Amino acid sequence: MGTQNGEDCFGWAARDDSGILSPYSFSRRVLGPDDVSLRITHCGVCYADVIWTRNKLGNSIYPLVPGHEIVGIVKEIGSNVKTFKPNDHVGVGTVVNSCRQCECCDGGLEVYCSQNVHTFNSIDADGTITKGGYSSYIVVHERQVAPNDPISSLAAPLLCAGITVYNPMVRHKMNQPGKSLGVIGLGGLGHLAVKFGKAFGLKVTVLSTSLSKKDESLSLLGADRFVVSSDKEQMKALENSLDFIIDTASGDHPFDPYMSLLKVHGVFVLVGFPSEIKLSPISLNLGGRTITGSITGGVPVTKEMIDFCAANKIYPNVEIIGIESINEALQRVVDKDVKYRFVIDIESSLKKP
Amino acid sequence: MGTQNGEDCFGWAARDDSGILSPYSFSRRVLGPDDVSLRITHCGVCYADVIWTRNKLGNSIYPLVPGHEIVGIVKEIGSNVKTFKPNDHVGVGTVVNSCRQCECCDGGLEVYCSQNVHTFNSIDADGTITKGGYSSYIVVHERQVAPNDPISSLAAPLLCAGITVYNPMVRHKMNQPGKSLGVIGLGGLGHLAVKFGKAFGLKVTVLSTSLSKKDESLSLLGADRFVVSSDKEQMKALENSLDFIIDTASGDHPFDPYMSLLKVHGVFVLVGFPSEIKLSPISLNLGGRTITGSITGGVPVTKEMIDFCAANKIYPNVEIIGIESINEALQRVVDKDVKYRFVIDIESSLKKP
Repeated sequence: MGTQNGEDCFGWAARDDSGILSPYSFSRRVLGPDDVSLRITHCGVCYADVIWTRNKLGNSIYPLVPGHEIVGIVKEIGSNVKTFKPNDHVGVGTVVNSCRQCECCDGGLEVYCSQNVHTFNSIDADGTITKGGYSSYIVVHERQVAPNDPISSLAAPLLCAGITVYNPMVRHKMNQPGKSLGVIGLGGLGHLAVKFGKAFGLKVTVLSTSLSKKDESLSLLGADRFVVSSDKEQMKALENSLDFIIDTASGDHPFDPYMSLLKVHGVFVLVGFPSEIKLSPISLNLGGRTITGSITGGVPVTKEMIDFCAANKIYPNVEIIGIESINEALQRVVDKDVKYRFVIDIESSLKKP
Repeated sequence: MGTQNGEDCFGWAARDDSGILSPYSFSRRVLGPDDVSLRITHCGVCYADVIWTRNKLGNSIYPLVPGHEIVGIVKEIGSNVKTFKPNDHVGVGTVVNSCRQCECCDGGLEVYCSQNVHTFNSIDADGTITKGGYSSYIVVHERQVAPNDPISSLAAPLLCAGITVYNPMVRHKMNQPGKSLGVIGLGGLGHLAVKFGKAFGLKVTVLSTSLSKKDESLSLLGADRFVVSSDKEQMKALENSLDFIIDTASGDHPFDPYMSLLKVHGVFVLVGFPSEIKLSPISLNLGGRTITGSITGGVPVTKEMIDFCAANKIYPNVEIIGIESINEALQRVVDKDVKYRFVIDIESSLKKP
C-alpha cells in the first residue's frame, strides 16, 4: 500500500449506471520503484468502456474512469526502471499489473494471469480501484508498458482492438502468405483484422450482414472479396475455401454456416462475445476443424505488433474527438456508428476542472 | 466399372432397419491393377455398425454388411502393387478408396477427401455398394491398406477406435511427456486414449459419470486419476489444470464444466457425436482455449500408430466373439456392455452358407 498523491489527476468519470461521464479529479498512487508514470495524450474508445460505464456486467465501481487504449509520454520512472526514460512515447493496454510469477506471466500471457490488474475498475497495488485512460496521467508497472515511438499517437486502438485480433492471428499461424482469411464484422476489431490479413499476404474476404459495407471493405480497407452472409448462394460458393475465420461480432449469430466455409483443418477464432456458441459436432468433426477464442494479448506480442504496424504502416482508421464529445461518442459506439474507432485527443481537450 | 466375381464372398448382412444380421453371399469386384484383396481374419465391432445396420441416419442401403476395423492376410495383389505381397498381414479401416488427387489426399487425409469410398454403404469403384468386414474377403485400393505384421490380429479396433483418438492426439501435440490429459468416456475410444496418453508420458485423468469405472481406470488401464464428473467439488479441484481433454462421449452433455478444467491455451478434442455443442464464449475467450473435432485419420498416421502400438505393446482390450453372436454383441454395444471392444473371429467362425 503506497501513499497516494493529492487529487492531481483529472479525467472524466461515470458516476452511476446511466454511464454519463463528467469531469472528475482524483488521486493516482505514488510511483513505485518498478513503475512508470505517463502523461496521456490519446485514448481509444472501446466497447468495454460502454460495458463498464453502464454497469452491464453488474460489477462496476463508481466513480468509474474508463479507457484502456492509452498512448502517452513518460513523465517519471521508478528507481528500478531501466527500459524507459522520461519523454519516451509509450502505450498501455488493458492490463496495468500482474503477479509476474505464474505460468501465464512467465509465458508473456499476463492478460490471462488470475491476479492481473485491469486498467480500470480493478483493485490496484495500493488497494484503490484502478482508473483508466480518459484522464491526464496514469501510473503503471513497467512491465505493462509498450514502447510506442515508431507509431502515431493516433494508433491508440492498437492497444486493445489491434492486439485482440493480431494476437490470435499470429498464434494460429495466419501469417502465411497465400492462405485465406474470412473476417466477420467490420468494426474496430474487424477493420484491423482486414489490414493485418493483407499485410500477412492473405486473401481476405469480409463476411458482413450488410451490403452497405462492400465498397469500404474493398476500396478503403483493401479486402479481396466481400460476401453478404445472409446470401445462401454466395455462402455456398465459399464452402470449404477458407483457411481461417476471425469472428469479431458480439451479436448472436449461427456458427454452422461459417464453419462450413473452412477448409479441412481450418481454424475459426472468436474474439467477440455473443451470448452463446451453438454448433453441430459435424462442423468440427468432419474436417477436423477448430473453434478457438482469445482476448487481447500479452506484452511481448503487443510489442511485436507495434513493430509490425510501424514496419507495414498499419494504423487504425479513427475519428478524433475531444473529451467533451465522449458521451455522444459512447452512444455512437452502441449504435455502431463509427468508422472504425473513436480516439480522444486527451492532450488538447482535457482541461483541469 | 469392372466385372464382378461370382458370389464367392460370404458374410453377414442386415436386410432392413431391424438391423438383424444373417448369413449372406455376394460378389466382390474383380481385383484391379492397384488393388489388394485380403482374406479377413478378424473384424472389430464399432458403434457405426449399429448406426448403419439400424439405419439411424436414414441412408442405409440393404443388404448391408458392416465392419470397418478389418485385419487379414493378403490373398492377391494387382499388377501395379509393389508395397504388399501375398500372405502379408494387413489392416483396413473406414476408407477403401479416395480420389488420390485432391489437397486432402495429397496431405494423407484421405478420410476427408470429398470423393472417398467408405468401407461399407458407399459407392465402390465399380458402381456397386461397398460391403464391410463381417465377411470372408475384401478388395481394397492398395493405398488404403496398412501393414499390420507387427501387431496382433486382435488389434483390429485400432483401425477405427484407435486411430480416432491417436490422430488428434498427435495432431494437437499431446505426445509431450509431463503434460496432462483428461479423457471423457471410457468405451472403445476412451480406453485407448488412456493407453496412448500413458504411452506418451501424460498424466491421465479419467472423467466419468459413473464411479463404477474407477477401479478399472486406475488398475486395468493405468490412469493416474479418476474424477466423477457430476461431483462439483472434484471438478472444482481440477479447474485450470489440464492441458488437453479428449471427449469420446456421444451422449448429450454440457461443455462449459469440462472447458473450465483446461489450462490457458488448453485444447479440447471432440471425437464423439452428441446432438449439439453448446458453450459460453467465456469458455473459449478467457484463456484462449480451443475446441476441435476429428474423425479417424489418414493412412500415414494410421501406419505411424500401428508402429507406435507395436513398439509400446499397446493393444485394445477386447472380447472375442464368433460371428454367430453378432446380433447379441451389437445390442450389448448399444447397452454399453462391453469392455472395451468386440472383435469377431471371422477366420474360425464364419462358414460358407
